[in-house]
Amino acid sequence: MAAGYRPAPRDERPAVGIGMLGYGFMGRAHSNALRQLPSTFWPGGCRPRLVGIAGRTESAVAEAATRYGWEQYATDWRTLVEDPQVEVFDNAGPDAMHVEPTLAAIAAGKHVVCEKPLALAVADAQRLYDAAEAAGVKHLTCFNYRFMPAVRLAHELVKGGELGELHQVRFRYSQEWRTDADAELPAPAGALNIIGCHAIDQARFLVGEIAGVSARFASPVTTPVRECRGEPVEQDDTVAILAEFDSGVVGTIDASLVSPGRKNMLAWELNGSKGSLSWSLEQLNHLHVHRRGNGSTQGFTEVIVTEPDHVLAAPWWPSAHILGWEHGHANMLAHFLHAVVEDEPVGPYGATFADGLAAARVGEASHASAQSGRHVTVTPVGASV
Amino acid sequence: MAAGYRPAPRDERPAVGIGMLGYGFMGRAHSNALRQLPSTFWPGGCRPRLVGIAGRTESAVAEAATRYGWEQYATDWRTLVEDPQVEVFDNAGPDAMHVEPTLAAIAAGKHVVCEKPLALAVADAQRLYDAAEAAGVKHLTCFNYRFMPAVRLAHELVKGGELGELHQVRFRYSQEWRTDADAELPAPAGALNIIGCHAIDQARFLVGEIAGVSARFASPVTTPVRECRGEPVEQDDTVAILAEFDSGVVGTIDASLVSPGRKNMLAWELNGSKGSLSWSLEQLNHLHVHRRGNGSTQGFTEVIVTEPDHVLAAPWWPSAHILGWEHGHANMLAHFLHAVVEDEPVGPYGATFADGLAAARVGEASHASAQSGRHVTVTPVGASV
Amino acid sequence: MAAGYRPAPRDERPAVGIGMLGYGFMGRAHSNALRQLPSTFWPGGCRPRLVGIAGRTESAVAEAATRYGWEQYATDWRTLVEDPQVEVFDNAGPDAMHVEPTLAAIAAGKHVVCEKPLALAVADAQRLYDAAEAAGVKHLTCFNYRFMPAVRLAHELVKGGELGELHQVRFRYSQEWRTDADAELPAPAGALNIIGCHAIDQARFLVGEIAGVSARFASPVTTPVRECRGEPVEQDDTVAILAEFDSGVVGTIDASLVSPGRKNMLAWELNGSKGSLSWSLEQLNHLHVHRRGNGSTQGFTEVIVTEPDHVLAAPWWPSAHILGWEHGHANMLAHFLHAVVEDEPVGPYGATFADGLAAARVGEASHASAQSGRHVTVTPVGASV
Amino acid sequence: MAAGYRPAPRDERPAVGIGMLGYGFMGRAHSNALRQLPSTFWPGGCRPRLVGIAGRTESAVAEAATRYGWEQYATDWRTLVEDPQVEVFDNAGPDAMHVEPTLAAIAAGKHVVCEKPLALAVADAQRLYDAAEAAGVKHLTCFNYRFMPAVRLAHELVKGGELGELHQVRFRYSQEWRTDADAELPAPAGALNIIGCHAIDQARFLVGEIAGVSARFASPVTTPVRECRGEPVEQDDTVAILAEFDSGVVGTIDASLVSPGRKNMLAWELNGSKGSLSWSLEQLNHLHVHRRGNGSTQGFTEVIVTEPDHVLAAPWWPSAHILGWEHGHANMLAHFLHAVVEDEPVGPYGATFADGLAAARVGEASHASAQSGRHVTVTPVGASV
Repeated sequence: MAAGYRPAPRDERPAVGIGMLGYGFMGRAHSNALRQLPSTFWPGGCRPRLVGIAGRTESAVAEAATRYGWEQYATDWRTLVEDPQVEVFDNAGPDAMHVEPTLAAIAAGKHVVCEKPLALAVADAQRLYDAAEAAGVKHLTCFNYRFMPAVRLAHELVKGGELGELHQVRFRYSQEWRTDADAELPAPAGALNIIGCHAIDQARFLVGEIAGVSARFASPVTTPVRECRGEPVEQDDTVAILAEFDSGVVGTIDASLVSPGRKNMLAWELNGSKGSLSWSLEQLNHLHVHRRGNGSTQGFTEVIVTEPDHVLAAPWWPSAHILGWEHGHANMLAHFLHAVVEDEPVGPYGATFADGLAAARVGEASHASAQSGRHVTVTPVGASV
Repeated sequence: MAAGYRPAPRDERPAVGIGMLGYGFMGRAHSNALRQLPSTFWPGGCRPRLVGIAGRTESAVAEAATRYGWEQYATDWRTLVEDPQVEVFDNAGPDAMHVEPTLAAIAAGKHVVCEKPLALAVADAQRLYDAAEAAGVKHLTCFNYRFMPAVRLAHELVKGGELGELHQVRFRYSQEWRTDADAELPAPAGALNIIGCHAIDQARFLVGEIAGVSARFASPVTTPVRECRGEPVEQDDTVAILAEFDSGVVGTIDASLVSPGRKNMLAWELNGSKGSLSWSLEQLNHLHVHRRGNGSTQGFTEVIVTEPDHVLAAPWWPSAHILGWEHGHANMLAHFLHAVVEDEPVGPYGATFADGLAAARVGEASHASAQSGRHVTVTPVGASV
Repeated sequence: MAAGYRPAPRDERPAVGIGMLGYGFMGRAHSNALRQLPSTFWPGGCRPRLVGIAGRTESAVAEAATRYGWEQYATDWRTLVEDPQVEVFDNAGPDAMHVEPTLAAIAAGKHVVCEKPLALAVADAQRLYDAAEAAGVKHLTCFNYRFMPAVRLAHELVKGGELGELHQVRFRYSQEWRTDADAELPAPAGALNIIGCHAIDQARFLVGEIAGVSARFASPVTTPVRECRGEPVEQDDTVAILAEFDSGVVGTIDASLVSPGRKNMLAWELNGSKGSLSWSLEQLNHLHVHRRGNGSTQGFTEVIVTEPDHVLAAPWWPSAHILGWEHGHANMLAHFLHAVVEDEPVGPYGATFADGLAAARVGEASHASAQSGRHVTVTPVGASV
Repeated sequence: MAAGYRPAPRDERPAVGIGMLGYGFMGRAHSNALRQLPSTFWPGGCRPRLVGIAGRTESAVAEAATRYGWEQYATDWRTLVEDPQVEVFDNAGPDAMHVEPTLAAIAAGKHVVCEKPLALAVADAQRLYDAAEAAGVKHLTCFNYRFMPAVRLAHELVKGGELGELHQVRFRYSQEWRTDADAELPAPAGALNIIGCHAIDQARFLVGEIAGVSARFASPVTTPVRECRGEPVEQDDTVAILAEFDSGVVGTIDASLVSPGRKNMLAWELNGSKGSLSWSLEQLNHLHVHRRGNGSTQGFTEVIVTEPDHVLAAPWWPSAHILGWEHGHANMLAHFLHAVVEDEPVGPYGATFADGLAAARVGEASHASAQSGRHVTVTPVGASV
């Protein structure tokens, strides 16, 4: 060490060993988030240790390890599950790889993170939820949009009674890429599982449990059957759901992969007896808030949710130095690791496997409704089935 | 006449005698529109002659006659129906007064204009449609929003194939005033009939016939039963409809009178294989247009629909001297009177009684769906029933 | 009269005889406004009587008389000035016709309305102001944008202290039509006189007197000299003014006829110690209001200025049935005629000839600054010169 | 290493040793950016090695070293300058520390990065520029907003001739925090140096050199003199500049720290003969583009600048997974390190010390204009002085 230098003091915060499955888009997003945590959440927080990353193709996973900052890599996810240094198993792998590895990690006593959809089949989601609960590990379904500062502020306003009783709600998630019939398919899934489950989770997070649904699916572009990795792609380019919530409020939830110009538009609006909220992911820092009242200057207020009193924005940058999409993952994983280190609950802010299961049940009921043409009751997560 | 003056030349355009029932909000809007026509639509167009206005309460109808510029008034609408000078019977009266006077006017050979909803009962709407068709008179249901320049431009773009095949659509009409449980009720009607029928007509105008619906109604504010003019108010503060169109496209149509901050938000979005459109009545001059294509500057274009090549804006003011709500009625009545004078069809731009009936059928099917919990087929107007 | 009819009662409100010079765009806008007044402003208000319209070309003015609803026409404006039935002389003629006819009307004891710019030369504006004041007639310069409901609300908020002390202000008026070098020129005038004077008047209306200016003009499209009606066009496609107000606040005022996509964008923003406002004519019903305060939901509120407590919107339509450009003229002329009938002051809401003169002085100082490269003091209207 | 693991392959890309002065907001932003580079810019790019951080207060700089990921720390910046492992000296320190340490680093042959304003005195900026040029090192002034994807796209469009000849331009940077007279002052500087220089640089980047200015400063809140760290605060809460560019185009540039509700609004609009652009930092991913043309669907297109063909967005996330404020720094430092490693020029995309000097000269001319009340010529950077 040259004269005048002193070594940086050791970071004394607890380390948490992470093992991650998956090196695609989500693997990159999770890695990026984990690397950003230590300096952003300070002096609290913890030090995620990027112990190992697993993936099927050695050249790709090796490159990802270097690129994303993981210490080691493995071509078999079991290496992570068997590694005692791995305390958290983060499943950012393809949809089809969500169940078995996560169950194995739970069986090994790991805390578990799993990308959405938790499982393509409700029965699998149920197994994951049951196993995680039985094992007493922390579990997180990656509904990352709960961790946008504007969404959290909306949640606080709704739960704090600022909107009064909800009267009507609407949720949508629209993207455009599958309008191109030659678009590469990322997974053998459709609008419901690729993006619709996010809209369902936002609805449950902000409004409450969904009691029943009527739904229609359509697939104008992806019919006849196309294949992705040898499997037929689920036949829904769009899904539209008429939802009735436990509270009696009625609303719509829809998703589309074939909406030109809507590049990443997860959006919602809530109307209540005392006010309204609206938000769109395409302008994720901005929440629109209307409060009923007297006077000549009523209307929707555009709130830039980047102020010191906005809990998920405060650790980041000064006023209106806006955040991007990736910060949702950082906030989400910081929250989960905090729950792990401090043994605190993941919910209600974080989505657990119960929430992943609940979203799957709404999807299942939607498919049943589309087939029968009937309003279908959604089985509650807590119900014995 | 003082020296230097000459009298204004006589307006040689054809005169059309009008008799109007109703002196409320709609009566004022229709009168205002009729007075604006002659100078705006020039040198074509015609001269509406405001022959007589009818209403129940003499003091009110007398005042309205003076205020709105009618030559005469009557307390019995039959006076209008029996007057040979009245060529067009314009029914801007309360919902409950739509059927009998309009049928009588048809029977007397008058061309007929009727405010929405054409009738509260489908059977009555059917009678009106059948009678008008049988009599060979021109008929118009006042779905005035078809005559907003931006809506017409959208119609042209859709019909011209600019959006390709439609993939997903959404229509809403949200207002806030009934959020106040003490709000005065203008009619013994609910969200569906007060505003929802406009959303249904926009859907039919822009997308096409609706084949079937699933629907839910809710009434968080107006339950228990309230009365308006001695009649119970229809119990829907909100309605949400999952619609399947003849073309196969799936969409949502909803209406709410209890959406704080949404003062007059009739809004829609259309996603097609080649592009998308969106619009809101609260900024009625602005149409948002997205066309798929290559290049780095794609997105939604905000078109201010006030240019010389925008057919419903051109007769008014120069570029971006924006129009207001009332101009829809002026455009609509100009269109209808042109059809009367030139013996041209009212449709497809104008809504006829067939469209009023069709909207009523969608409403009827929605009620049936809400009661049964089933997807319900909508009976086509042309079908024998 | 057929049985059952009674004639509309006579309108007992005071009639005010109007004589108008000009039949172009402004003549049409004024006529339209005058025709709308009686039914909108009720039961108060008055009855403008459209006595006569004057214009140079007989065929055109005769057509305008019929089209716009004037009783008579004349090819010499002196006919109006000499007509004792004309109480108000409304000068909607070309810029070059503002001075002599208006002075003659004043001399004849008429109340006078004059389109902007009041005069192209400051000396002429001064003569008009002095003559009108000496004669004791009511006088109005047609700065119609003061009469947009959102602008009035802004004025109330500023004058009511809701913004505290102003810190920075900005005013602009941008149009695009002269970007086309072949565009027809409506008048031998430039950006300052065609639209810039509106921005100056808005600044004076909302902020206060302008003490001094630095300014630059540019004319990238209309140089070299083009002609309009045989006269060279004033050489400014754009003007930018750095203004210092009497209160010490500094701001910018600019105008451009060569701003593609800005079709009719008169817009401003005010920042004060307690809040901010912003507005654009392209969405003229919407005022954006920010009030400083505590809490997590601060921001700009989009107020749709169409509610019963918005004084210039209330006489028109229900909530968010938005108004158009033409309603500014209707509100303005209703205000002026009320001042005439009730012998009340035209200001501060209406712009008098003092305001027309003040705008001309700011323009004159701007030209002087552009020539000298110096900050130039604006001579106050009240100052002896 | 547990069975099944292999170590992550060594990152073979060139390492670049960085030494940074400053641990405040900017120190955090630079550190965050440097840590994000290696995985985002892949497989190209380089590996910044965070060799050492320097700052005055040991406890703070030690904490920053740990928190931000620096290997070592020093309380004297000379340690960095003398360290042969430091190839790039990154000056993110307070304004008053920009000159001496950066000159020393240049003298030691380091490539240099310096936060804005390059220097508070023009003479100092000149010394820095001269020294860096003479030494042949790479130099960067941190005008980070050049590296927002939307700003780069705008630059491409302008330079590619898509706007034609520019007609009018406007630049602003407005914040609100100093509206509170008790706000803590971050530096003994005013609106011009804290934020205005960014607006000036955007103007130079997008439009070109500024030939001359007229300017006014105002300080309604921060007068009388307040102190910050023992030094009087420069007396400008607001500055407004009327700028004439070399090309002849006229525009406005202004900055304010006292604009309530404008939290971080760097915004501009460009009007040219072929089209217009507008942008705001508060919605930094969205560029509004208008192209003149025929047809009924002209207007401003809202482009979400996050597509694969947007050069500064492409390395990050998929379509409309929007970026935040911090990504500008990451893009900027990636660009600079690329220039260092490949020995390529920093300009024209990156701002060099020439640009820092040019901004200072515009500021100096603005002060001179405010004092003299005259239009003042700006001395070009290339001119001998």
